[in-house]
Amino acid sequence: MTFKRSALIACAALAAMSFTAPAMADEAGEIKYRKAVMKSIGGHMGAIAGIFKAETGNQTNLGVHTQGMADLANITASVFPAGSDFGETGALPAVWDKPDEFAMAVKMFADAAAKLNSTTKSGDMAAAGAAFGGLAKTCKNCHENFREKKNK
Amino acid sequence: MTFKRSALIACAALAAMSFTAPAMADEAGEIKYRKAVMKSIGGHMGAIAGIFKAETGNQTNLGVHTQGMADLANITASVFPAGSDFGETGALPAVWDKPDEFAMAVKMFADAAAKLNSTTKSGDMAAAGAAFGGLAKTCKNCHENFREKKNK
Repeated sequence: MTFKRSALIACAALAAMSFTAPAMADEAGEIKYRKAVMKSIGGHMGAIAGIFKAETGNQTNLGVHTQGMADLANITASVFPAGSDFGETGALPAVWDKPDEFAMAVKMFADAAAKLNSTTKSGDMAAAGAAFGGLAKTCKNCHENFREKKNK
Repeated sequence: MTFKRSALIACAALAAMSFTAPAMADEAGEIKYRKAVMKSIGGHMGAIAGIFKAETGNQTNLGVHTQGMADLANITASVFPAGSDFGETGALPAVWDKPDEFAMAVKMFADAAAKLNSTTKSGDMAAAGAAFGGLAKTCKNCHENFREKKNK
């Protein structure tokens, strides 16, 4: 009975942990994974910009990119596990020192990405264009407050 | 009647054009867009590799990346419109000179990406791992036969 209860508590603790913060496999590996996710996000943002500026004739691809942004924004919080703040990373200590502010900044990003996706899917391109501007601001917000300046 | 018939033919021609090859907006813009799409693909591939190698604890994010790969592979043929073969591109003339071979190579890529996504969603991680290896081979196939060597 005691064993069962302990096991139950351990399972509950594990479940809670996996929900709030994934186990960190390896510091360098986590940073590499984070950069890969950011690379994919950067690719989509560039692609969406190219479509809105009509630099490409591939207007019909927009939904793929906005869906991709919505999905990637939803996992962005997970790519900053505790302990991945050292090594070859531009992420500032503020990510982990100010978890509430950071969580809010990531939520704004995810909400903005979802809005761009839903307005795009609705076909209202004026609203989608505005939503893309809003999304870009949330990228900038995080990059200014939670990432090292690239040219300093 | 003649007018209507002409309009019908024009519409059919437009529909056929938009199906087979999107209008090219701007040579440099198309190349920039293509690179953005490839960047997003590269990010996803790196992320998936990190998950399979257990470099990250974010195993549950795998489906986002495999879905992203499936969606991006489906639009890959569209990022090589006729006329986007000059300028700052590593794409070889073979892309446009051997359209059937190129279309087949891209189809193999899209099929492999779809397979990785479906095996991942089915939960069969051994099959997904094998499918990821298969997908990587289709990347390599195109990069060896239709892209300039990066270090030449």
